[in-house]
Amino acid sequence: MSKEKPSLPKGTRDFSPAVVAKRNYIFATIKKTFEKFGYQPLETPAMENLSVLTGKYGEEGDQLMFKILNNGLHDKKEPEKEKLKVQWDKLLQQPYSTPDITERALRYDLTVPFARFVVMNRNEIAFPFKRYQIQPVWRADRPQRGRYREFYQCDADVVGTRSLLCEAEIVLMIDEVLTNLGLTDFTIHINNRKILRGIVATCEIIEKESIVLAAIDKLDKIGMAGVQDELKLKGIVEGNVNKIGTILTDVDNCTLSQPNLTPKNKFLTRIEALKFHLNLIVDEKERLNALKGINEVLAVINYLESFDLNFSKLHYNPDLARGLSYYTGCILEVKVNNVNMGSISGGGRYDNLTGMFGLPDVSGVGFSFGVDRIYDVLEELNLFPASAQTSTQVLITNFDQAAERYALPILQQLRDAGIATELYPDQAKLKKQMTYADQKNIPYVLLVGSDEMASGQLQLKNMQTGEQQQLFLEQIIGQLSA
Amino acid sequence: MSKEKPSLPKGTRDFSPAVVAKRNYIFATIKKTFEKFGYQPLETPAMENLSVLTGKYGEEGDQLMFKILNNGLHDKKEPEKEKLKVQWDKLLQQPYSTPDITERALRYDLTVPFARFVVMNRNEIAFPFKRYQIQPVWRADRPQRGRYREFYQCDADVVGTRSLLCEAEIVLMIDEVLTNLGLTDFTIHINNRKILRGIVATCEIIEKESIVLAAIDKLDKIGMAGVQDELKLKGIVEGNVNKIGTILTDVDNCTLSQPNLTPKNKFLTRIEALKFHLNLIVDEKERLNALKGINEVLAVINYLESFDLNFSKLHYNPDLARGLSYYTGCILEVKVNNVNMGSISGGGRYDNLTGMFGLPDVSGVGFSFGVDRIYDVLEELNLFPASAQTSTQVLITNFDQAAERYALPILQQLRDAGIATELYPDQAKLKKQMTYADQKNIPYVLLVGSDEMASGQLQLKNMQTGEQQQLFLEQIIGQLSA
Repeated sequence: MSKEKPSLPKGTRDFSPAVVAKRNYIFATIKKTFEKFGYQPLETPAMENLSVLTGKYGEEGDQLMFKILNNGLHDKKEPEKEKLKVQWDKLLQQPYSTPDITERALRYDLTVPFARFVVMNRNEIAFPFKRYQIQPVWRADRPQRGRYREFYQCDADVVGTRSLLCEAEIVLMIDEVLTNLGLTDFTIHINNRKILRGIVATCEIIEKESIVLAAIDKLDKIGMAGVQDELKLKGIVEGNVNKIGTILTDVDNCTLSQPNLTPKNKFLTRIEALKFHLNLIVDEKERLNALKGINEVLAVINYLESFDLNFSKLHYNPDLARGLSYYTGCILEVKVNNVNMGSISGGGRYDNLTGMFGLPDVSGVGFSFGVDRIYDVLEELNLFPASAQTSTQVLITNFDQAAERYALPILQQLRDAGIATELYPDQAKLKKQMTYADQKNIPYVLLVGSDEMASGQLQLKNMQTGEQQQLFLEQIIGQLSA
Repeated sequence: MSKEKPSLPKGTRDFSPAVVAKRNYIFATIKKTFEKFGYQPLETPAMENLSVLTGKYGEEGDQLMFKILNNGLHDKKEPEKEKLKVQWDKLLQQPYSTPDITERALRYDLTVPFARFVVMNRNEIAFPFKRYQIQPVWRADRPQRGRYREFYQCDADVVGTRSLLCEAEIVLMIDEVLTNLGLTDFTIHINNRKILRGIVATCEIIEKESIVLAAIDKLDKIGMAGVQDELKLKGIVEGNVNKIGTILTDVDNCTLSQPNLTPKNKFLTRIEALKFHLNLIVDEKERLNALKGINEVLAVINYLESFDLNFSKLHYNPDLARGLSYYTGCILEVKVNNVNMGSISGGGRYDNLTGMFGLPDVSGVGFSFGVDRIYDVLEELNLFPASAQTSTQVLITNFDQAAERYALPILQQLRDAGIATELYPDQAKLKKQMTYADQKNIPYVLLVGSDEMASGQLQLKNMQTGEQQQLFLEQIIGQLSA
């Protein structure tokens, strides 16, 4: 047996009890809202067949997957071993994987396993299928601050309906979760992929859509001048670069002269500014498609108005593209204002999730919460409630055998009242027991000594204030259950 | 992109929403009790360094681990690639692993990661450290009915104290969890490793301890004759085979003539029968050790009496060894009576958990629940409550745009009252919407048509009874919140 100092794999973390408690508080808050909206939990295995994963995340994804070495290779027959040697040589020369060496890998995200599940169970599922999934994923990225090789994703998707009610409900869920977590100052940015395409179509360069959108997507980081530089660099002619700049700037400037607009009207005015430009698209099909994007956004807004949403949390953002993922309709992203942190939630509609497994035309819309980031924000803003930071409520001291015996029924009565209670298991010095309570963040210590046993009145010490009260057990139970 | 039919890796499972809900009911029941007893959640990464895992589970374990192929092997320099080829040849000839090919594997159990965590964080941990851990583990076993390659373990351990209060509290926790799950007819079998060793010591063949205990451990399955045959086969002389048989039979027979013993006295009488034999051990050190085992069991029993445990659930079982694991003191195992199923919980005390990582003398005691088996038992006995089988409470129908618009504020008010509610997102035929509610096990459907909009009275249909009521929204909220 090795006695070397044990260590953790790079980029992975242990979650100590204090951290698990806070993470569970976030997960529980999210789950409660998901379930209130009819989303149900799904869990898929950590391992997926490589045939399911390969090619779904681009070349980089294929290389960053953690692949599992097949078991029992030494038990293979000689001819197979010869083949394995040849394949190993190949693997050493180029990114190459073969089912003979590795046929499984760790889950890389929750979307592909979800698509696989839908396809495999399409005859049993009640569509529209609303599922949420909170599980770890693994990526062999270079670890750095805030980027881990094992991290949780927290996704909710509904597939099998094109109803824009789903988009509106996603906005409601985001609002409810963040509000319940105590966050007040956040903005939900909204856009639509069809509108983005429309901006490109105004220039009649739809064949360069991905180049243009990749540049626009960076507006947030590199500013308008940066976007225009990149567009020029990528060969977009100056007239079109200016046109794109004008459209985006128009949207941002259109409300400047009307500082008293309601949040909703500000949102609608920005949409109108955009619509003006999209109406000028020459190609009729492209024009109709872009206007469809506008109408989708308006329909979502209409739903949200019926739901009485506070529109000051919504922002129409014409440059939001979320890295050109597979979105085809609504796109959304959430940022906490005045905190130096990327987006904490995002998502959108896709029209062909299960097409990768041969089941076309399953439209859906989904989003996810970035739990690690939410954790950091709550920590920074000191928003974790006390209840997420304590576990045991009462520690009963243990000074000698008589006191221990006296304490056993007390321990049981406190627990029966639903109060998480421990009896210190060894007869130790008071200081040691107090330190234990302190380290474990236990709010109350119940002191049981000879005086207390004689009188039946126990000493309840509040560990935060230091205050000590002489109370009968029923009083203590009454006080702590309250 | 491959369009082949997607599949799951052998031995793994998707958990559909209905199954997750039932599993979560079990997990929540377990966690609630763990936390009431002061146990706190720990989570460790799915991957561990092979240097941490290798050699901890015997040769079989090393071979059944899922090892992760290192990433970026094709990027290595030529000399390293030559080395990798040689190592690959070695791997093909014999069970061999090298950090150059694989340096990580998936967690094989929760105990070794726990020991690693304790050693790595020994300066920050408040001892006695009570932790529970509910996470999946992976083993490349041949899949078969009830045996999976990915399955959850559910462990609770306390380390850093030798107090037998911990053993007693484990019995209490098992009793509380199973009772809360609705199980009534189960037996907690108790033994002690020191007593088992004592039985071997009566024969003065302590050097054959592991052979003898391996045979005794099978009593349950192969009967006394089978155990005796195996002992003979393994070279134990007939006199000793008979002696062992006599001791075990004596314990079982000692209460036959006293059918009216209380459960507690039956337990104590069995212990006494054993004590008689252990007192005859010639070697003083061995005798004292065996009697210490007796006293440990009695101390646990004493605690349990103070806690008012129903002793009819306890059984002293002299042949319980639990596969000769690393236990050094108390051993326990739980079986549901009248159900054809192995043990659903088990554990014991170990004196050297962290010794494998160079930190000696950390005594602890732990146990685990077999969640897959508990699931099957609850299913077989029909014990899952309705609340674990529904998620959405109300489906609101959606017939046309006017009804949808009318339904939006109703939807919001139901949710604001904490009632999980969905509005069917598309305008579809009633039958389709009813089928959706049925498939998703939604107990109530709220019908909103033109009559209802006119009168403000909505039709609430109970999907189980078929009964339909005309009610105002406030009445519905009152009824469903109750």
